[in-house]
Amino acid sequence: MRDFSADHRWLSINTATVRKSRGVEQPLTDIIEACAQRGIKAISPWRDQVAAAGLPAVSRLVKTHGLTLSGYCRGGMFPAVDAAGRQAAHDDNRRAVDEACELNAACLVLVVGGLPGALAGQAAHKDMALSRNQVSDGIAALLDYAIQNNMPLAIEPLHPMYAADRACINTMEQALDICDALDPPRTGKDGKTQQAALGVAVDVYHVWWDPKLQQQIERAGKSRLMAFHVCDWLTPTTDLLNDRGMMGDGVIDIPKIRGWMEGSGFGGYSEVEIFSSSNWCQRDSDEVLDCCIARHRSDV
Amino acid sequence: MRDFSADHRWLSINTATVRKSRGVEQPLTDIIEACAQRGIKAISPWRDQVAAAGLPAVSRLVKTHGLTLSGYCRGGMFPAVDAAGRQAAHDDNRRAVDEACELNAACLVLVVGGLPGALAGQAAHKDMALSRNQVSDGIAALLDYAIQNNMPLAIEPLHPMYAADRACINTMEQALDICDALDPPRTGKDGKTQQAALGVAVDVYHVWWDPKLQQQIERAGKSRLMAFHVCDWLTPTTDLLNDRGMMGDGVIDIPKIRGWMEGSGFGGYSEVEIFSSSNWCQRDSDEVLDCCIARHRSDV
Repeated sequence: MRDFSADHRWLSINTATVRKSRGVEQPLTDIIEACAQRGIKAISPWRDQVAAAGLPAVSRLVKTHGLTLSGYCRGGMFPAVDAAGRQAAHDDNRRAVDEACELNAACLVLVVGGLPGALAGQAAHKDMALSRNQVSDGIAALLDYAIQNNMPLAIEPLHPMYAADRACINTMEQALDICDALDPPRTGKDGKTQQAALGVAVDVYHVWWDPKLQQQIERAGKSRLMAFHVCDWLTPTTDLLNDRGMMGDGVIDIPKIRGWMEGSGFGGYSEVEIFSSSNWCQRDSDEVLDCCIARHRSDV
Repeated sequence: MRDFSADHRWLSINTATVRKSRGVEQPLTDIIEACAQRGIKAISPWRDQVAAAGLPAVSRLVKTHGLTLSGYCRGGMFPAVDAAGRQAAHDDNRRAVDEACELNAACLVLVVGGLPGALAGQAAHKDMALSRNQVSDGIAALLDYAIQNNMPLAIEPLHPMYAADRACINTMEQALDICDALDPPRTGKDGKTQQAALGVAVDVYHVWWDPKLQQQIERAGKSRLMAFHVCDWLTPTTDLLNDRGMMGDGVIDIPKIRGWMEGSGFGGYSEVEIFSSSNWCQRDSDEVLDCCIARHRSDV
């Protein structure tokens, strides 16, 4: 297992983590500069942040600093109440692939969506099987375009507490069943099997509890393990979305999970992704970045 | 599938649902009287409520009204930091079995516990595998006593958001793996295979999201399906513990899950179990009971 103590070359910052500084929204360009100043080698930006700063400007800045994108957040949200809604999602996801290509991202992360309308507070129906079928169909349709553009798609299984409103793919096993169904030969970026066209983003916050996690990480293998996101599960957790903890402040045995990842061939970035309305986003973003580096290197 | 519209003979009230009326704690004896007055045939009381009212008084009242206990809440909480702690849990769980026998409960529900200390806000360690092993060992030890006393044990898989602090058994598959390991012949109450000694309590709130739910209900079969708890998942959910919804107010397709249960031979009570600090416990408990009856009969 890699030793992170000497430097932070394998740290990536998901830009949602420092979206705000002292409660104030920050431009993505400032976030990128702050990362580059600290010798952070990789980021994973969100589409809305890129759009606000302008894709060409972000692309230039990423190249200027020689940054890698450990992923691009995010495509997905496939289910909809009608064909027009699903087509709109498909069109938007193709644009997400285009943007990910422009930024040379390692993968496009997919948060697949749940019951249509649930995120706004009123689900249009209760049929999870229907949503799950629409997700599979949506990924299948997008996969063709992604393969043409050499952009791997990484399904992110979300914690079951988000099943209704954010993602109806909730375990590694479920995500990998879809991968195996839609991308059986693990064809990929270079036409070989080294990198699959379809894989998973493993976020410890979403999957740490799963008794089959180790088994499913091994099943995924290097070719489907496309991203590794870290933060921590706090006890108590006071908000379902915005109470993620900094690594080391909660109960997740992150080194153990990283060990399973690396034992299966993963050698990519540890990407810090923290959503927090109550704590971290009220701090100065410089302090947050420094803390990310320190916790990354101490491997808590 | 049974038609619930004509009466509510298959409704059970978990007494946590009406623990408070207009925010004020109610004695269990009052709750039992209120249920009996409405022709409710079954309840599932919590140990602390029984203790406060006195076990003999509760036992008499249950018999007077001819009530059935669809379950008794609860045993479990097996993991601890040392042998003394595990022994204390074991001793307490034997008392729970005794109480369940006195009340002639259909089963003792097990909420198995998570990481020791996590419920109080400070986990003693992060080793979920250790806790899970302690749970298996604890159930194995209790099972001998439960079989001697003809009291079935029902493992309740809890939603993964409770993995750290309340229960490290989080899916039906995981619970049933333990059942099959510890009670392979499905021996039980009457020495036959009709009723296993060890099974599961299926609470829709905890398992509704699981893509393998139908498959695992079928795997469990009649002999291991010991209880069926209902309430609803709200969008948004504002509190991890105390924001359960009344049936019909959320996104869970309860009739579909009940259909799977009955298709596998379950013919027991639909037990309403709602924890809510923000809504239902501020209402008059008579109103809550009437609503439970109405929603049960409309089968939402």
